[in-house]
Formats: sequence, C-alpha cells, structure tokens
Amino acid sequence: MQIEIINTGSELLLGRVLNTHQQWLCRQLADAGYEVTRQVTVADTGEAIQQAVRESLGRADLVITTGGLGPTADDITRDKIAELLERPLHEDDSVVEHVRSFFARRNRPMPDRTRIQAMIPEGAEIVQNAHGTAPGLIIGVAPNPFRATGDRSVLIMLPGPPRELQPMFTAQILPMIREQFPLLGGFACITLKSTGLGETLMEELLENPLSGLVREGLQVGFCARTGEVDVRFAANGPNSAALVANADLIARKVGAEYIFGTGEESLEQVVVQMLTEAGKTIALAESCTGGYLANRITNVPGASAALVSGMVTYSNESKMDLLGVQKATLEQHGAVSNAVAGEMAEGARARAKSDYAISITGIAGPTGGTTEKPLGTVYIGLASADEIFVQHYLNTFDRKTFKFVTAQQALEMLRRRLTGLIPV
Amino acid sequence: MQIEIINTGSELLLGRVLNTHQQWLCRQLADAGYEVTRQVTVADTGEAIQQAVRESLGRADLVITTGGLGPTADDITRDKIAELLERPLHEDDSVVEHVRSFFARRNRPMPDRTRIQAMIPEGAEIVQNAHGTAPGLIIGVAPNPFRATGDRSVLIMLPGPPRELQPMFTAQILPMIREQFPLLGGFACITLKSTGLGETLMEELLENPLSGLVREGLQVGFCARTGEVDVRFAANGPNSAALVANADLIARKVGAEYIFGTGEESLEQVVVQMLTEAGKTIALAESCTGGYLANRITNVPGASAALVSGMVTYSNESKMDLLGVQKATLEQHGAVSNAVAGEMAEGARARAKSDYAISITGIAGPTGGTTEKPLGTVYIGLASADEIFVQHYLNTFDRKTFKFVTAQQALEMLRRRLTGLIPV
Repeated sequence: MQIEIINTGSELLLGRVLNTHQQWLCRQLADAGYEVTRQVTVADTGEAIQQAVRESLGRADLVITTGGLGPTADDITRDKIAELLERPLHEDDSVVEHVRSFFARRNRPMPDRTRIQAMIPEGAEIVQNAHGTAPGLIIGVAPNPFRATGDRSVLIMLPGPPRELQPMFTAQILPMIREQFPLLGGFACITLKSTGLGETLMEELLENPLSGLVREGLQVGFCARTGEVDVRFAANGPNSAALVANADLIARKVGAEYIFGTGEESLEQVVVQMLTEAGKTIALAESCTGGYLANRITNVPGASAALVSGMVTYSNESKMDLLGVQKATLEQHGAVSNAVAGEMAEGARARAKSDYAISITGIAGPTGGTTEKPLGTVYIGLASADEIFVQHYLNTFDRKTFKFVTAQQALEMLRRRLTGLIPV
Repeated sequence: MQIEIINTGSELLLGRVLNTHQQWLCRQLADAGYEVTRQVTVADTGEAIQQAVRESLGRADLVITTGGLGPTADDITRDKIAELLERPLHEDDSVVEHVRSFFARRNRPMPDRTRIQAMIPEGAEIVQNAHGTAPGLIIGVAPNPFRATGDRSVLIMLPGPPRELQPMFTAQILPMIREQFPLLGGFACITLKSTGLGETLMEELLENPLSGLVREGLQVGFCARTGEVDVRFAANGPNSAALVANADLIARKVGAEYIFGTGEESLEQVVVQMLTEAGKTIALAESCTGGYLANRITNVPGASAALVSGMVTYSNESKMDLLGVQKATLEQHGAVSNAVAGEMAEGARARAKSDYAISITGIAGPTGGTTEKPLGTVYIGLASADEIFVQHYLNTFDRKTFKFVTAQQALEMLRRRLTGLIPV
C-alpha cells in the first residue's frame, strides 16, 4: 500500500516554521502498521498544490494533505483540489453551524470570511474539527483519472495547526484508515526506549536472543538519538502479537539495565512515577545544567509530589550559602570535583529534608576547560539516607546537548538506584 | 530559479526522527535570497531515491540531497545517484586520507567499511567534511537528460548528520551557490524578532509607516509562533539594501516596545547581554515554571556572569525556607498570589545579593485550577533595589507551552525594565 503526505505552506519552504507534521503523521501511521512512502512540501500556490496532488494520486492509495483549509487568503488547498478533481463547492450547513457555535462559545463575533471554511467539494465526507473551525475532508477518488489503472485512491485533507490536526487524526481519521485499508492478517508493534548503551552495542546485545523470533518474521529496528536508543519490534500476520510480545519479554530481560520505558515515555516520566509510587521525594542542586534537570522533571504532570526543591547554584557563593558546601572543599578541589558534587548532593538533601538529592557540577562550555578538567567534565552526585554516590563523566557536546546528556545520566543514576541496579 | 531538496532516510518516513534539515536549509537559502520550491522525503531504496532525483532534475536548477553518504548498508544515496547519472565511482585518495586522519586524531582504528565513503562519482567536486568522514559532493549535470530543454542543473549531496551538514553548507556550499547562481541586481533581507504583540496587531502597527517602502518594492512577511512574532523584510534589486535598512529603522522606532532582536537572537540572549553590559546580576525564584527560566538563561554562553542563583520552590516549605516567604502571606493569599510573588522576588534578591530577581508562581496544570484562580493563572514578580513590581497573567496552554510563554513574559518584563520601558 502506497501512502503519500503533502504538506502545503510557503512558510515551510521559507524555513520560518519546523514541519512537525511529517514526523507525527509518519509515526502514527507506522505504529498502526502503515508505512508512508513519500512526503512532499509545496508552496501555497495553485500550480504547486495541484501538481503535487496529481502526482501523488497517480501513485498512492492514500494521499494526506495538511494545511490551507483556513479562512485567510493563502488558504487555497481546498479550492485548488476541488478544481483539480472537478468537484464544485457547496456551502455545508453543519459546518456553518459548527463555525458559528465555535465563536459563540468563545463570546467572539464570527468574522464573515470564516464562513468560507464551510465550502465543501461535492462528495467529500466532512470531519468536524473539535479544536478549530476548518473541517477535515475525505474524498474517495474513483475512478482515479491520474492512475493508469484507474484504481481508487482516498484523499484526506487535514487542517494545519497541530492542536487541530493531531486529535482529529487520532480520533476520526485513523479509525477510518483502518476500516478502509484493513491490514491483512494482523499487525503488532512496540517501541522500547533505552539509555546508557549505544546503538551498535544494543544491536549486538539483542541479536542472538532474538534470532529465533527474527526467523519467524519479527522485524527489529533501532533508532539512535543523543543519549537514547529506541528499539522497535514489529510483525505482520496472524502470529504478530505473540512475536512482538515475546520479543518484548526477551529484550526487557536481556536489556533490563538499559530499557526504561515504552512508546513515548520519557526518562523523567518514569523516574517521577517511580518516586511517586514509592512515596519518595527528591531535591536537585544544579550548576552546569542550570535548571535543565529541574525543568525536565517539572515537565511531568504531578512532579510536585516528588520534587521538593531545585537549586541552580552557578557561583561558589551560592554553593556555600544554599547548599552548605565547605569553602575548604571548593579551594582544595575546585567547584568541578567529586568532593564538591558530594557535598552539593548531601547539602541539598539535608536542606530539603528529601529522601534523595541529585547534584550536578561540570563545565558545559564553550569556554572554561583546562588540561586537567577539559570541557565536558561533569560530576553527578546522588545522595540518599544510606550513601553519597558520585559518578564522573566526560560529555563533549555543544551546550544544549551537554545539558540533555548530563540530565539523562543523572535521571538514569536515580532510576537505577530506585530499581536497585546501582550497587550500593 | 527552481530549488528542490530531497531528504533521504527511511527513519524519517517511519517518524522516528524529526526532519530538521528542511527548515534549516530553507531558512539559510531564503535569507540568502533563494527560495526552495519543493521538498521531498523518500525512503532509502534505490528506486525511491532515483525516482525523486530524476523528477527534481527534470524541474530544478539546483537539487540538494541530504543523507545516505555514510558507511552503513542503508547509505546508498551516492551509489544510486551515480548509477542514475551513469557516472562510474572511483576511489579518491584525498578522501581516503581525510577518513584515515579523522580516526587517527581520535585514536580509533579506521573501520574498513568507512573507506567506501571515498568512492566518488566521476566528475563530482569533493567538499571535505570538517566534522565527519563522508564528503559532500557537487555534480554539474550538463547536458541534463531529465530536462526537456537539456538545461544544466547542479546536484549537491550533503551528509545527513546536522553537525556535519550545517557547517559544510554555511562555509562551503552557500558560497558556491552564490557564485554559480548570482542574484541579479542584489538582494537584502533582515528578520526582526518581537514579543508581546500578536501577528495581526503587529501587521496593523507597521502597515502605514511602511507603506511607502512597500510601494518601492519592500516585501514584508510575518511569522507567528507562540509568544513571538518574526517580522521579515526582504527586497530585490539595486535599491534592496537601502529599502531593508529603512524598513528596519522605521520598525524599530514604531515597534520599539516589542522588537527585541534580529535574526536568530533569543530573548534570553538579549537579556543576558544587557545584564552583562550593565554589570548587573540576577537571581530567580521559580515555582510553576520549574527551572525552565533558569534553563533558558543558562543556555546562553556566559550567563554565569549575570545569574547568581536560581531556586525552584515548588512546595510552600521551600518558599519559606529558601526565599523567606512569610507563612502568614501564604495562608492569607495562597501560594499563587501577588503578595507571594512579591515576597519570593524580594527574598531571592536578598538571599543572592543580586541587583534584580524574578519570581514566578502560578498554576501550570493540567490540574490544580479553581474558579477564583483558574488553570494558567500566574504572577510574575520583578525586584530591584528601587521597587518590587508584580504582573498578573492568564496563560491557558498545555504544560510546556505554559512554561515557555510564562518565561517569555518574565524575560520581557526584565528587558523592559533594563531598557527603561516599564514605568517605575
């Protein structure tokens, strides 16, 4: 089955905005067993849109467009596609009513030009927009004049704003795709998230244990990002669910040390959940990560149950004043040292009266490195009632990547401590 | 002039990674006066790559591919394009030497398979990779068998990793494009960054003052993101530099209150620079933004000169202990209140002995709102030696957007204070 995505929008080709639709839609479809074969971005001109749609309808069973359904002058996708398919536009009462009530609920007058969103190509199925005014549209193109075979294609037009497109796709479009393009014989898929082991080593670790399942049809994919490796298991056919479930079991056993979650889970989500379930609390003392670890943890709804406080102590004075780091320790070992990391963690824990505390001190760069302590040097401390544990890393990355990798290592230290994987 | 970008990579179509090349390359080209007319993503299969390249060479003067030049089995872009263009591959000594020294400098053995990156299509110009092993390649396709006119096209192949592609494009590729495709008669472009005013209001504000320049050929574009609006001025022709410079002057005068920077500048960069130049320091006390403001400020290299300390005080206890907020104030007004924001800012400033302090207290959600203080309620305090100023906002967004918008408002309060725009 061929699926193509057409993103419309001149702002995309001017590089003013990032195209997040591509990844999001591809990911949703892949996890449902459908692979996108091509994605294209074109400007908001009639010629470019029609050319792209014509080409895609000539190849693909399913064509999805994004953008250009709104009320402004450059929203021309609906009109240009209707013209290409020779489908006259008619105003639809249900959409007019939807737009009207959308503005009424917000106590705002309905601008006249928003009514244009109710102009629907003949024969199109309307998908009401729960988070905006422009409806999604589904058109069955049959017979398909752009395919040599004349085979039917389905064309779906989605609104551009992600907060409108995403819920519409999940709730209304994907079920329709499953119904109109049923996967023959079943499909299953799971993504495991891991940290602490590179892509090649993870592949080596899993290769032998999974070889039997691979012979039976299991597909294994790896995707490395900085500080994380995703392992994706997929299978087709009647046995797919069992294959993927077995692969999941084996990988979690063999890779227990590194695998922290599933799907879209983040390491901070996992750690906050572990802390909350154990009824434990944490405090943070960050120097070189400058609040980034606190930020990641507080991105998790409900983090307030686990996080007592965080301190960003850039200066030596603040390390002494807020965390009780000894002046002598700073003078003898320097701010970036095992000893200071230990005192920071212990001080943060004592001050916050928390069960655990994490401290981070290091050199993020771009300046400040020495021969003895080069750029990227970092010490991460983890204090609990039983012990203070300090780990040394060398993270030679640009400033933002340094922060991410270092926070990842700190979260992973805590996760291992909470699962009992760090030797005490 | 037609420019097309082809991103190769099955991981892009599986939605495993975000395609950042599209925005980055389009932006660089647009700011240099070149507009990308089409972007396409295809999987790492010979058929898909060759079909996309054939189509693009049939339309475009310049075709840029990304990815597939490395040493692994799915890196087939170079081979498949050489095959399509009927250019035999020859090993190039300078590339072999570059790869060898790349590994030697890192004290790592050179894997045998990395040598394949030295296989160069006949007639291709080699662009050495300063941050990796795979070279970029430039091929003049003349005569061009895929164009009806036979007109020459230029095909550029870039490596996939952004840290290799970006410096190569800036230092080596863009100068070549400027030389081979000179802009007739000149081009100028500037992007102003603003906050605090919506897109429509910004457009209205600038419309009349700029109308004269628009009649002379100035192009004005707006791009709204959450919490920011970019204003882009561009012009072609011999008068372009003057047109853009005049537009810049007028916009900065009319929109002085809202325009904070140029190009890729962030609000935190501007604020850190203002603080550093004035020799002033700041402390932060964050509740609902959970360290995100500290994180943004410490993303700026050299922020340590301005930031003394940051405190993430989620709990009432930490607000009292670390910031000296009065128990009575918390009980009487609640943690999310004008009074507590004021005491947090003042306490942070006193504790850090800094010139300024910012405090943030609010309800990020998804839970915790009440009728009196709905989700998104936030108080931002700014303390200096002269005064404590507290501003109230209602930021009804998802959790991460809430953090961004709130931090943006806090930085903007400080920027206005530093420029003297907030009435004291």
